Amino acid sequence: MKLGKVVGNIVSTIKTPSHQNKKLMVVIPVDASRKEIGEPMIAFDRFHAGIGDYVLIIEEGGSARDILGDEKGAFDAVIAGIIDQLP
Amino acid sequence: MKLGKVVGNIVSTIKTPSHQNKKLMVVIPVDASRKEIGEPMIAFDRFHAGIGDYVLIIEEGGSARDILGDEKGAFDAVIAGIIDQLP
Amino acid sequence: MKLGKVVGNIVSTIKTPSHQNKKLMVVIPVDASRKEIGEPMIAFDRFHAGIGDYVLIIEEGGSARDILGDEKGAFDAVIAGIIDQLP
Amino acid sequence: MKLGKVVGNIVSTIKTPSHQNKKLMVVIPVDASRKEIGEPMIAFDRFHAGIGDYVLIIEEGGSARDILGDEKGAFDAVIAGIIDQLP
Amino acid sequence: MKLGKVVGNIVSTIKTPSHQNKKLMVVIPVDASRKEIGEPMIAFDRFHAGIGDYVLIIEEGGSARDILGDEKGAFDAVIAGIIDQLP
Repeated sequence: MKLGKVVGNIVSTIKTPSHQNKKLMVVIPVDASRKEIGEPMIAFDRFHAGIGDYVLIIEEGGSARDILGDEKGAFDAVIAGIIDQLP
Repeated sequence: MKLGKVVGNIVSTIKTPSHQNKKLMVVIPVDASRKEIGEPMIAFDRFHAGIGDYVLIIEEGGSARDILGDEKGAFDAVIAGIIDQLP
Repeated sequence: MKLGKVVGNIVSTIKTPSHQNKKLMVVIPVDASRKEIGEPMIAFDRFHAGIGDYVLIIEEGGSARDILGDEKGAFDAVIAGIIDQLP
Repeated sequence: MKLGKVVGNIVSTIKTPSHQNKKLMVVIPVDASRKEIGEPMIAFDRFHAGIGDYVLIIEEGGSARDILGDEKGAFDAVIAGIIDQLP
Repeated sequence: MKLGKVVGNIVSTIKTPSHQNKKLMVVIPVDASRKEIGEPMIAFDRFHAGIGDYVLIIEEGGSARDILGDEKGAFDAVIAGIIDQLP
């Protein structure tokens, strides 16, 4: 898993059915001192993360399907929680 | 998942049966400001993405099989939607 | 799998149910001579690893679910053991 | 998936049973203009790819098992087709 | 899959049950001319690979469980064979 910082969201009209009504956030990986350390990734969010929030990202299909509550959906990255405290 | 920009397509005659009649696009990863940030990848497309379109790429076998509607096919990367709006 | 060095832990209040009561550690990949070689990752821990411990990290959902004893949880990285001896 | 160029093959005598009688190729990732862009990977081949051929590589266990026709084998990368035309 | 060179092994006392009595090797990825090309990884070995041997590494849970003969174990990287001949 990775720490990330939410920087925005994206909008798509033409998309696969399992993505309807789900929010797609742009997240930049950060290290434990909040420094950006990688290229942005796209992750689904069901925790209402806002811009500037630090989040935990899981990049695995089974975990994303569990968190999003859709056993068959086409997902491979998801926000698993909002971080309150870094080391 | 990743954002990408479609830059072309490839053609293969000798290929595995589950790839027949499916379109293979060359996609370059981009960041949220549309800057290219990585090496090109190859993804299946069923949304008729055109050259220059920005797309959402999923790199996971189960998701690709769901979107392409073939539960047993040999796929691990697929275009999941066409992006209308970046942050 | 990777070798890593534990450098801290993170705390999250808003999170997915399968993450309740599980400890999330920040781990930096190291090589066999203990040199840091990559960006920090986040892994679950059930072996009570402490700061400064060298650990074995597995980044795969099935393995994480096995080690954490939760067949359906949303996990993709876990500490699999504490390293006593490097080459 | 990735584009690659076949540069050779490797031979192994002591190996896992599911690898018997299967050909292992060394493939270097290339971009759409045929420039080498990464480190070599090893992939199984059942399409008789030759040195210098451009191929499509899938790096996923399920897809490799499908293409190689062995549901239980230990495979995670396979040549899925030979490329006739790049963009 | 990757080519690698075995450089040592690690020892862990506190570890998950499925790792008992299995050997963990430190392997450095190499290219086809035996040049080191990446950071060391940790892989299980059941082929008695020795230091200096060139090996084939598979990084996938299902393949590792097949080779190690433990359908439920927590494994994601394994030595699949010892290389006799490079291109």
